[in-house]
Amino acid sequence: MQTVILLFQCADQKGIVAEVSDFIFRHDGNIITADQYSTDPENGHFFLRVEFYIDETLHDKKSLEAGLTPVAGHFNADWKMYYKHERLRMGILVSKPDHCLVDLLYRWRSGELDVDIPFVISNYEGHRNIVKQYNIPFYFIAATKDDRREDETLKHASRDSDFLILARYMLILSGDFLDKYGKDIINIHHSFLPSFKGAAPYRQAFERGVKVIGATAHFVTETLDEGAIISQIVEGVSHKDGVDDLERKGKNMEKQALSHAVYNYIDYRIIKYRNKTIVF
Amino acid sequence: MQTVILLFQCADQKGIVAEVSDFIFRHDGNIITADQYSTDPENGHFFLRVEFYIDETLHDKKSLEAGLTPVAGHFNADWKMYYKHERLRMGILVSKPDHCLVDLLYRWRSGELDVDIPFVISNYEGHRNIVKQYNIPFYFIAATKDDRREDETLKHASRDSDFLILARYMLILSGDFLDKYGKDIINIHHSFLPSFKGAAPYRQAFERGVKVIGATAHFVTETLDEGAIISQIVEGVSHKDGVDDLERKGKNMEKQALSHAVYNYIDYRIIKYRNKTIVF
Amino acid sequence: MQTVILLFQCADQKGIVAEVSDFIFRHDGNIITADQYSTDPENGHFFLRVEFYIDETLHDKKSLEAGLTPVAGHFNADWKMYYKHERLRMGILVSKPDHCLVDLLYRWRSGELDVDIPFVISNYEGHRNIVKQYNIPFYFIAATKDDRREDETLKHASRDSDFLILARYMLILSGDFLDKYGKDIINIHHSFLPSFKGAAPYRQAFERGVKVIGATAHFVTETLDEGAIISQIVEGVSHKDGVDDLERKGKNMEKQALSHAVYNYIDYRIIKYRNKTIVF
Amino acid sequence: MQTVILLFQCADQKGIVAEVSDFIFRHDGNIITADQYSTDPENGHFFLRVEFYIDETLHDKKSLEAGLTPVAGHFNADWKMYYKHERLRMGILVSKPDHCLVDLLYRWRSGELDVDIPFVISNYEGHRNIVKQYNIPFYFIAATKDDRREDETLKHASRDSDFLILARYMLILSGDFLDKYGKDIINIHHSFLPSFKGAAPYRQAFERGVKVIGATAHFVTETLDEGAIISQIVEGVSHKDGVDDLERKGKNMEKQALSHAVYNYIDYRIIKYRNKTIVF
Repeated sequence: MQTVILLFQCADQKGIVAEVSDFIFRHDGNIITADQYSTDPENGHFFLRVEFYIDETLHDKKSLEAGLTPVAGHFNADWKMYYKHERLRMGILVSKPDHCLVDLLYRWRSGELDVDIPFVISNYEGHRNIVKQYNIPFYFIAATKDDRREDETLKHASRDSDFLILARYMLILSGDFLDKYGKDIINIHHSFLPSFKGAAPYRQAFERGVKVIGATAHFVTETLDEGAIISQIVEGVSHKDGVDDLERKGKNMEKQALSHAVYNYIDYRIIKYRNKTIVF
Repeated sequence: MQTVILLFQCADQKGIVAEVSDFIFRHDGNIITADQYSTDPENGHFFLRVEFYIDETLHDKKSLEAGLTPVAGHFNADWKMYYKHERLRMGILVSKPDHCLVDLLYRWRSGELDVDIPFVISNYEGHRNIVKQYNIPFYFIAATKDDRREDETLKHASRDSDFLILARYMLILSGDFLDKYGKDIINIHHSFLPSFKGAAPYRQAFERGVKVIGATAHFVTETLDEGAIISQIVEGVSHKDGVDDLERKGKNMEKQALSHAVYNYIDYRIIKYRNKTIVF
Repeated sequence: MQTVILLFQCADQKGIVAEVSDFIFRHDGNIITADQYSTDPENGHFFLRVEFYIDETLHDKKSLEAGLTPVAGHFNADWKMYYKHERLRMGILVSKPDHCLVDLLYRWRSGELDVDIPFVISNYEGHRNIVKQYNIPFYFIAATKDDRREDETLKHASRDSDFLILARYMLILSGDFLDKYGKDIINIHHSFLPSFKGAAPYRQAFERGVKVIGATAHFVTETLDEGAIISQIVEGVSHKDGVDDLERKGKNMEKQALSHAVYNYIDYRIIKYRNKTIVF
Repeated sequence: MQTVILLFQCADQKGIVAEVSDFIFRHDGNIITADQYSTDPENGHFFLRVEFYIDETLHDKKSLEAGLTPVAGHFNADWKMYYKHERLRMGILVSKPDHCLVDLLYRWRSGELDVDIPFVISNYEGHRNIVKQYNIPFYFIAATKDDRREDETLKHASRDSDFLILARYMLILSGDFLDKYGKDIINIHHSFLPSFKGAAPYRQAFERGVKVIGATAHFVTETLDEGAIISQIVEGVSHKDGVDDLERKGKNMEKQALSHAVYNYIDYRIIKYRNKTIVF
């Protein structure tokens, strides 16, 4: 038995769930979980995520996809079907701060993140040792603000990854890089967006005197810190907390917001729609 | 157009969603939202809540129910269908503390709680004025621990309410009352259950020195504070907080846990299953 | 025995706590609680709040103040001394949304807020009834964006209040009003500042697709939504939450952030320093 | 300049803060931060933590302690003085689950935990590699429920540690061990105590159907899971969360509750008093 995940979206209309679930039933599938959302039942956009068991000796992926095509065509839908046992390849880009990197690697080794990690790329050579301990290829690319050497990064990323994580990567990826890569990139920003975009958010938060700080995992777009938000974690602070304390508390939240985003992404629970996300 | 809510549960098996959604489609219904949960896709129990629009000039409630009967029979399912515009009648029982009462009445008047309130019953006469301001019948029943006068309460409750709220009601309802009433009763307990059952939970919390306190809305069963939990709210405390502070903070949480439970209950989002709840 | 609260601030230097606590000791006072904070032990600014019992038959306020004057002079300090039994007068300004108003009035009547409420001023006549039930003077001032009639408001405020609460007051107070009033004004803003300043913050939050929303109580300054933050409450949301849901959840948070700010303000726990607050 | 931390406790009475701060002033100390708490200003118990700078070329530890002795004698106080640069030695005991171990080691290496780690003791040989990478001595002691081999553990612990962390240590330490060790031991319990003491707390939480779970760091006493609570972290869960999900979410909370407790413990911010803690 295989677990299949179907993501399906189209203009909202009558009968979508009926036809899709009938399709699964006709292939002897058993729905494990189904989530749906409509931006508006009248003329809105409809999103569906169904996870179901199927006997692949009876229905292989090709025949399943062939069977769904007319259903999707009927509703003029976009859709994708994933087999849960096929693991995504997650490339990691990271600058000097290592807390998110270490956290992701630990969760990966402990089995919490069911994903392949084809490489870690950093402009900080010092991460080589820790990455090597996990038997993951490490590439040092001496990128700087003035010479970002995106071609080298792109070469690895395009060939070996299905999506990228910026696990505290301090360089801004160019629109050209984003276009050429063409797949999803998830960033962790160390503030509660949209507050405190850009550099030194903990200092900004300190200066403003907020009583709660946060961290935000979001998709990367060409406009800095404006991509669709996936996950936000927050924590109270007080006047006693200096910038150092905010950073220390923030690291905890960054790890959690980022790993939460990754955990849901690789289970195909996150759908981007315009500048927002649906997280089923 | 009417909004209908269908709750449906049965042994998990193939084709449930397909048949139910096909049933809706055949009656020209449009699914607004659907939630499902299975305790286990293999031999578990399956729960479904579907909210859909329907044109009642074409399909009245009777014909809808008649149409669903064979579908439910096929799966040997329990089900209920509700029309959203038909409001539930929520009776309130309350002793002297009035914070939950006042909160519920305010939310009701402001339109947040779409429900009828047929009566407030109290063993504290002092609530009469506030209840009167809302034009809700108020019954003073001088119940005490030794003479609970449950018959009088039952008379109102049975005739005029679809469910009851114990909004800080200090008397324990007897098993006999529960049997005779036979409908749902929701209680707010002023602790983070299962910690600190019974009397004086804030004092218990203070004595134990916990760093987080809470409030719990739950269904009432014959065993005190053991019914299925609906909603829990928590908040941090410190050594500086005396019993008075815990009570003050707790009142905030009680209001929120209880109103959250009511809000979901009257939207038919809460399903009891054994000693637990599914809150869709 | 009286409870006295001393707020004391000066450039940080050696011996402040020693001299101030010696002063209290020499007047037979017993310190109940003391909080202190320094922006930096080297050349920073020092803040102290001490709450102590004193026998006023031995030392009346005048003699206490006379005794502290040379101590304060020694450190070139700003200070104020308050008697806990002298209640502050809190004026309330409110537009049509009534959830914060009702919440404050309820907490006041229940004894949680130990303060006098000399008046409620509104540009919405409909609040008269609820305010009257509490035997609080209500003034309807038909202010609009184009004719704010600040003189009438100022007349009541200046004469009868020690501070003002904007409990969802939709008009922006002019710099001239702020100057003439000259005392503290606390506003509740329905977002997690500095995100979503200005109008319709819940809509802004919805459009941005944040996963956490909040409410902020802050001091009013001439620059809109830029005053020192006192208290922030946050809560998670998801793609399922429409603007209406954000508003409903937000109301809960507004009540809590505002009442938390008031609770601490009237206990003299809040010190403004530049654009930030110390909340002891 | 040295940073000194003074912990001081005695029956509450007049003049304590005055005398202690005068003592610091007379030694040219500058108070960085001071926290105090009294269980009751009338006949209660008083606790003080003061952190101050001092020029140790003028006043060495011996002379400081000699100077404080008469002050403490006057109030019949218990007290201890610590130099911040003298690091505590934290021994770690851990069974197979490694998430808390890895988290502590990472925080230690990153400089967040300013402590020495003299050893890691485990009844799981598999941790040797990770501990070695940090150049920390690792002792495999094949303890089991039936043969806990506490003598071997005690030998290392008594000689080399100032306190112990049970970072998910599955064996119950005997009263005899606790007596002989005689110093503080901090445990992480994987539930929101006092709920779900003993074994398999996540399963207990699942069975009870709670909507919030937690983790608790507490001091170890002879009675299992009854020691004074230091720190509790909580998180919401729903019917969708199986036991596995509770465990996954719980691991996050365990790491945070434990590291929070350690962080405060090594800064001398935690005072045990009867069965509770004061966390300054």
